[in-house]
Amino acid sequence: MQNWLNEKLLELNVTDKMNQPEGFNRLSFTKEEETAHEAFRKNAEELGMTCRTDSAGNIIARLETKEQQGEPARALGSHLDTVKNGGGYDGTAGVLCALGAVKKLQDENITLPFPLEVICFISEESSRFTMSTVGSKAMTGKLTKHQLDNIKDENGITLRQAMEAFGLNPENIQKAERDEKDLLSFTELHIEQGTRIEDAGCSYGAAAAIACPIRLHVHIHGKAGHTGTTPMDKRQDALVQAAELVTFVHEAALKLNENDDYPLVATASTIEARPNAMNVIPGYVKIGIDIRSVSDEQKNKMEEAIDTYLAGWTTAVEKEVIVRNDSVFLDQEMYGKLKELETTTGLKALPMESGAGHDVMNMQEKWPSGLIFIPCEDGLSHHPEEHASIKDLENGVELLYAYLTTADSR
Amino acid sequence: MQNWLNEKLLELNVTDKMNQPEGFNRLSFTKEEETAHEAFRKNAEELGMTCRTDSAGNIIARLETKEQQGEPARALGSHLDTVKNGGGYDGTAGVLCALGAVKKLQDENITLPFPLEVICFISEESSRFTMSTVGSKAMTGKLTKHQLDNIKDENGITLRQAMEAFGLNPENIQKAERDEKDLLSFTELHIEQGTRIEDAGCSYGAAAAIACPIRLHVHIHGKAGHTGTTPMDKRQDALVQAAELVTFVHEAALKLNENDDYPLVATASTIEARPNAMNVIPGYVKIGIDIRSVSDEQKNKMEEAIDTYLAGWTTAVEKEVIVRNDSVFLDQEMYGKLKELETTTGLKALPMESGAGHDVMNMQEKWPSGLIFIPCEDGLSHHPEEHASIKDLENGVELLYAYLTTADSR
Repeated sequence: MQNWLNEKLLELNVTDKMNQPEGFNRLSFTKEEETAHEAFRKNAEELGMTCRTDSAGNIIARLETKEQQGEPARALGSHLDTVKNGGGYDGTAGVLCALGAVKKLQDENITLPFPLEVICFISEESSRFTMSTVGSKAMTGKLTKHQLDNIKDENGITLRQAMEAFGLNPENIQKAERDEKDLLSFTELHIEQGTRIEDAGCSYGAAAAIACPIRLHVHIHGKAGHTGTTPMDKRQDALVQAAELVTFVHEAALKLNENDDYPLVATASTIEARPNAMNVIPGYVKIGIDIRSVSDEQKNKMEEAIDTYLAGWTTAVEKEVIVRNDSVFLDQEMYGKLKELETTTGLKALPMESGAGHDVMNMQEKWPSGLIFIPCEDGLSHHPEEHASIKDLENGVELLYAYLTTADSR
Repeated sequence: MQNWLNEKLLELNVTDKMNQPEGFNRLSFTKEEETAHEAFRKNAEELGMTCRTDSAGNIIARLETKEQQGEPARALGSHLDTVKNGGGYDGTAGVLCALGAVKKLQDENITLPFPLEVICFISEESSRFTMSTVGSKAMTGKLTKHQLDNIKDENGITLRQAMEAFGLNPENIQKAERDEKDLLSFTELHIEQGTRIEDAGCSYGAAAAIACPIRLHVHIHGKAGHTGTTPMDKRQDALVQAAELVTFVHEAALKLNENDDYPLVATASTIEARPNAMNVIPGYVKIGIDIRSVSDEQKNKMEEAIDTYLAGWTTAVEKEVIVRNDSVFLDQEMYGKLKELETTTGLKALPMESGAGHDVMNMQEKWPSGLIFIPCEDGLSHHPEEHASIKDLENGVELLYAYLTTADSR
């Protein structure tokens, strides 16, 4: 299995070695994502699965006996797109381990009492478009035609245009929504992107809930002017104001963690300054802020702290809410079963929450869903040095296999 | 004269109205700069001047009698390129007033005892390439072929490539250097880009010196990671560090002005964050810092303060010096004459320094040179709302005319 995992990891990453100084760049709806999807399809078909691409670009690989045709399936899956200069495990590990579980079922000559699907979701990351989990949103009927035209990448290309360039027909996007009775459950495996599993001396994590983000854009309007001729005490420098905001967000988030059981993270993660020229005082700065906690109350406290802080400014400033998603609690029964895989696999489980959003958060709204984490080195993710060991990937296969072989057809 | 100035102001700005919400965008060596240069050539020729373009792209318009051919000239001039979203007066006012002075000489039927030149310098602003005053550097022999290949715009286009695309032959760049005996003097008129003239109740400024910049790039290397899964206390957020630096630069500059006769300005004017994605902690940030004072000692103090501050960081950081230009004192005799134009014109002069670099700082290294400022509204410059009144432009014409008609041929 380890050799097979090594080989397929490279194939899904469309590379001959995982150590890439610039990481992987498979942004949403790009040629690079398409090539990885083709590698997925090839490998799923080699395992005897039947593949179809839905109208959003998700690939659904299905394994079933003749008698199981039309029956509700249990689904596994994750995504293959990455952030800019990302790693080869975020998303890919989940797709790989799901395929690994299919391989193990076949190696062991096991026929499940239900159809099995492995879903390769499209466009999970929000790096290109500000929206994340586009594929699972479409599959659960949460993607609107209005959004297709309104969400743009940094070059002004709309989601609709990107989908068309990808060979899809966005007019049919609603056809990607699946019926409730199509699936019995959905289980995602993902790298942890943190160090809590390792810190706790465990081998995997079972997630009870997902911390979904509030995302803000703060537009700061100072006054441009010549850097050489505008005295220091007569400036309205938008970057100086923005710097204060970045510092405030970091410190306020640290403080909010002192007195609460639920951790909160808040990050000023994007910045754009205009005109961004050496000899001009920045007249305008836009800051993107990402706030997450399983506790919606904590997230709201953080947003309120920012509101109060900005209200004290004399500089012209607008806050724009880009995303405000309530955090999602996963299916309690599935969560229990995933924790109990300890007994069948001998691997120690950490009950935990997810700090990041994943496709499973959309799937949970329609089907009982669960999330397994495997460790990744130093918790590093969204980074060229992102790494999960082959041993941990093999554990991931064992966990999904153990889950499937103890699940029933109801 | 006011109607003529209004009309020519529009022509040199290649527009039908000065009030442009996005300002003007005539970046160095672009089609837009070329079109403005064509407008200059047309207008200079209409005034009976003979125009030639040198190998750097500067246009030299010359007015002389047959007897004056080959004699050293007195030159006026400035530039027509702008920053991104800049105004229509920075540079343009100087070119316009110089042409206005030629027109007034003709209206008054005056033949000067020396050839007169109006120079339209190319690529004065550093917005596209990090280097400013490219045209006057070439004319004074300060531009090297090495620089042509090493200086790039944000798209990686070298200065050489940009010059080639502009129709120039960069191999001949050294031919743009002029002989010391070609010119008797150079006088630039420019908008003040500050409010000191107005604040002092004066009508124009005569500059004694020019505060040339030290420019730094500070590269901050944090560690990228997932915004949702990396706990607040385990981060190396490059933008949080950058924010502290921006605040420090602003505060240190304010402080350095408290105890010194020479004003100093320091601006963190550019910022680039990577990967600049909503769900990734910034792993790398580059800050551009522009430091200016007539006092090189003050500039050095500011740079040392930054060095000391960065030395206290645990985050990996590198400082790169992009520009370190000693401040320039202008010709004392010319400075005296420009101040004395008070008596001939009835306009009140403010003796001052220039906080910004101008083409005159290069010209001074080879020829006695001077710099006249006219006021601009609220000191606003490098901004779409940049504005100088027609009355002040007319005063500019009067000042240059008065200077020329009292100058001799030695």
